[in-house]
Amino acid sequence: MPDGRRARGDRSRDLALRSGVGLATEHGLDGFSLAELADETGLSKAGIASLFGTKHELQLAIVERAREQLDERVFRPVRAAEPGLDRLTTLGTAWIDHLADPELRGGCFFAAASFELDARPGPLHDLVAADMDRWIRSIARMLADGRDRGELRADLDADDEAFALFAIGITANTMIQLGGAGDPAGRARRVWRRHLDRLLPIQEAGT
Amino acid sequence: MPDGRRARGDRSRDLALRSGVGLATEHGLDGFSLAELADETGLSKAGIASLFGTKHELQLAIVERAREQLDERVFRPVRAAEPGLDRLTTLGTAWIDHLADPELRGGCFFAAASFELDARPGPLHDLVAADMDRWIRSIARMLADGRDRGELRADLDADDEAFALFAIGITANTMIQLGGAGDPAGRARRVWRRHLDRLLPIQEAGT
Repeated sequence: MPDGRRARGDRSRDLALRSGVGLATEHGLDGFSLAELADETGLSKAGIASLFGTKHELQLAIVERAREQLDERVFRPVRAAEPGLDRLTTLGTAWIDHLADPELRGGCFFAAASFELDARPGPLHDLVAADMDRWIRSIARMLADGRDRGELRADLDADDEAFALFAIGITANTMIQLGGAGDPAGRARRVWRRHLDRLLPIQEAGT
Repeated sequence: MPDGRRARGDRSRDLALRSGVGLATEHGLDGFSLAELADETGLSKAGIASLFGTKHELQLAIVERAREQLDERVFRPVRAAEPGLDRLTTLGTAWIDHLADPELRGGCFFAAASFELDARPGPLHDLVAADMDRWIRSIARMLADGRDRGELRADLDADDEAFALFAIGITANTMIQLGGAGDPAGRARRVWRRHLDRLLPIQEAGT
């Protein structure tokens, strides 16, 4: 019976975290209560508390789950591509597809968390700041790889261009969520592609 | 005496709105109470309620005040510049200077509000979505003016490039607030300038 209990505990944990990520992107990591999470999942407040301990530990587990989702949907396909330009192209597609998925209610978890936490010091702030920093640095590495392989201009500044590409993705998220006019996901895919085109070595640039 | 009372009311209103904009960028438009606003300003809760009526009316007045601040610090210098490339250059400088101002605790009010409200329908959401939309359209107009004046490439897509420039500014805000490594404001100024350089007519492009 302990195994049965453990399996039930795992399912409950999974259910709580899936709802938790959704609630956190919609209302903020600090913007929902255990009661709301219990309500959405059908679990009891006591059951959730026994699975996660404190609200803070629940929040950390939610951040971890959101990381895993992103890894599966975005980073795994990127790692499967060739280093350099191929990875940058794959990242643009996988990231914006992920953001445009209607199941991702509330949009990108990390964008929501960063804007919730940017002005509020604390361990959650530091965790999210470190994630954003890692994200930008991984784009910078792809750019440096593309430059070193001769796929991109020899004079590009990898950190500056990583900032520009990161900005396109994160702004796509906001525009998709705000439901602005036009097709923000399509525009973001086009702007990402055009930005990469401008980084091609001069002799190969289309225009 | 009615005039004295009115002047005191104006000063109290000004004080409440200045603190309100600060609290809203740090904690969200829905993230602070009348008690906290009273605490910060030294005004009474009853006094604030008599000035603004409902919390919702206070929120609308805060949005209005944030708009006025932005107009004074960013849009006024932009309007004073020549239409086209000159305005785009001025916008990059004035906007990023504004975002990097340490007095702007919590960063850009509209970025904070948009990320707070992007997944939450309602009149505040619509107001902020409309502001972002107007902002991007005004950048698109500057780009179209620059193109029509022959300062920028004849084949540029003003809406796409407006999205890319908007993304640089709004991401600068986040990175400044998160206090990431390096000099995010300096990087954003450089990336903005380089983006404009890439939009120059081919024969004039530096590289």
